[in-house]
Amino acid sequence: MTKSKAVCLLSGGLDSSTCLAYAIREGFEAYALSVDYGQRHRIELEAAARIAQALGARQHRVLKVDLRQFGGSALTDNLAVPKDRSADEMSHEIPITYVPARNTIFLSLALAWAEVLGAFDIFVGVNAIDYSGYPDCRPEFLAAFEAMAKLATRAGVEQGQRFRIHTPLIAMTKAGIVKLAASLGVDFRLTHSCYDPDERGRPCGRCDSCILRSKGFAEAGLADPLVSA
Amino acid sequence: MTKSKAVCLLSGGLDSSTCLAYAIREGFEAYALSVDYGQRHRIELEAAARIAQALGARQHRVLKVDLRQFGGSALTDNLAVPKDRSADEMSHEIPITYVPARNTIFLSLALAWAEVLGAFDIFVGVNAIDYSGYPDCRPEFLAAFEAMAKLATRAGVEQGQRFRIHTPLIAMTKAGIVKLAASLGVDFRLTHSCYDPDERGRPCGRCDSCILRSKGFAEAGLADPLVSA
Repeated sequence: MTKSKAVCLLSGGLDSSTCLAYAIREGFEAYALSVDYGQRHRIELEAAARIAQALGARQHRVLKVDLRQFGGSALTDNLAVPKDRSADEMSHEIPITYVPARNTIFLSLALAWAEVLGAFDIFVGVNAIDYSGYPDCRPEFLAAFEAMAKLATRAGVEQGQRFRIHTPLIAMTKAGIVKLAASLGVDFRLTHSCYDPDERGRPCGRCDSCILRSKGFAEAGLADPLVSA
Repeated sequence: MTKSKAVCLLSGGLDSSTCLAYAIREGFEAYALSVDYGQRHRIELEAAARIAQALGARQHRVLKVDLRQFGGSALTDNLAVPKDRSADEMSHEIPITYVPARNTIFLSLALAWAEVLGAFDIFVGVNAIDYSGYPDCRPEFLAAFEAMAKLATRAGVEQGQRFRIHTPLIAMTKAGIVKLAASLGVDFRLTHSCYDPDERGRPCGRCDSCILRSKGFAEAGLADPLVSA
């Protein structure tokens, strides 16, 4: 039986790695797509390549889109990454690490590759629970993108084909994601979450992403090998 | 009085040049955005830079996104550009020059720059009349993109701000576009439409784009300096 193809957005972080592992477990032939958008940390892309290989993705592509030309985010500009914020602070405003229209751009690129491959399933590891600050991680955005994708493509218009955006992690807590990742055999040592690692790639432990990851491992009752190593 | 900013997608062709001129005439401060997506003809990007300057755009950026990594189009792959097609053939199928999800990607990039600039107006020179073959040039696609954009962005979510996608050419014939361009002072010599120019950049005269341009000039009763020169 031929497997259905799926394009899986893969940053190299815990969430997108878990999402890729999930897509493969669901029986999809996975085409992993990473975007080199000028993020300050090349280590993310190296992690993505290792993870795609370890999990058995059929292909892995890195597409370069230099969003530093636009700036406007701590991840693409010379702005400081916030540290030591409480869960309350994180959930009440859109953080400076928000990259304008990032998921719209990433999903558009995934859509382009999907259409060329004849794939109608796109996986993205967005999460609206622990980190609700990003507008483009919310279910209503993703539903609007799906509606648009059908009208944007040859397959949608000529064959009425629907592109499905799968977001298996969207309603999960970080602890739930850690447990799911463990059950899917994701090698945590390969995943990278920190917004502000040191020159050797070690996590800072204090940015929003490190804090959420740490809380997730603690609540899941597991040790994070990136920290405890 | 401060002018409103607008991001204007600019390929360097007749339509997008006319659209940029129109936005400026409407009183917008124009930020022209060209995408270097691996199109086979570098001449397009050179044309775009000259046009942005000639028309008085405030800034012009060229963003590189290598869609050749995905392929799937005569414009990004080693596929032959169709020649000598009739108007009927052009209007009845999506041509091989269709680049999967291209306008979705371009508009997403424009949206990102708009959000950083604090611009809420995006101009794109799509046309659904003379060249209805592309799914992502139709009004229903553009309306769906607008709906999605509002949900995708900080400005949309926090301030209820709507991003307006302006498509002043969408219902115009090519002859109408030629006349509008003339009235706006677009220098036709700078615009470039051909899908398959020779090594010196001269139009082939036989691809869909050349045929439509030629028909437009003829019906407008004007001479195309690119051809007659």
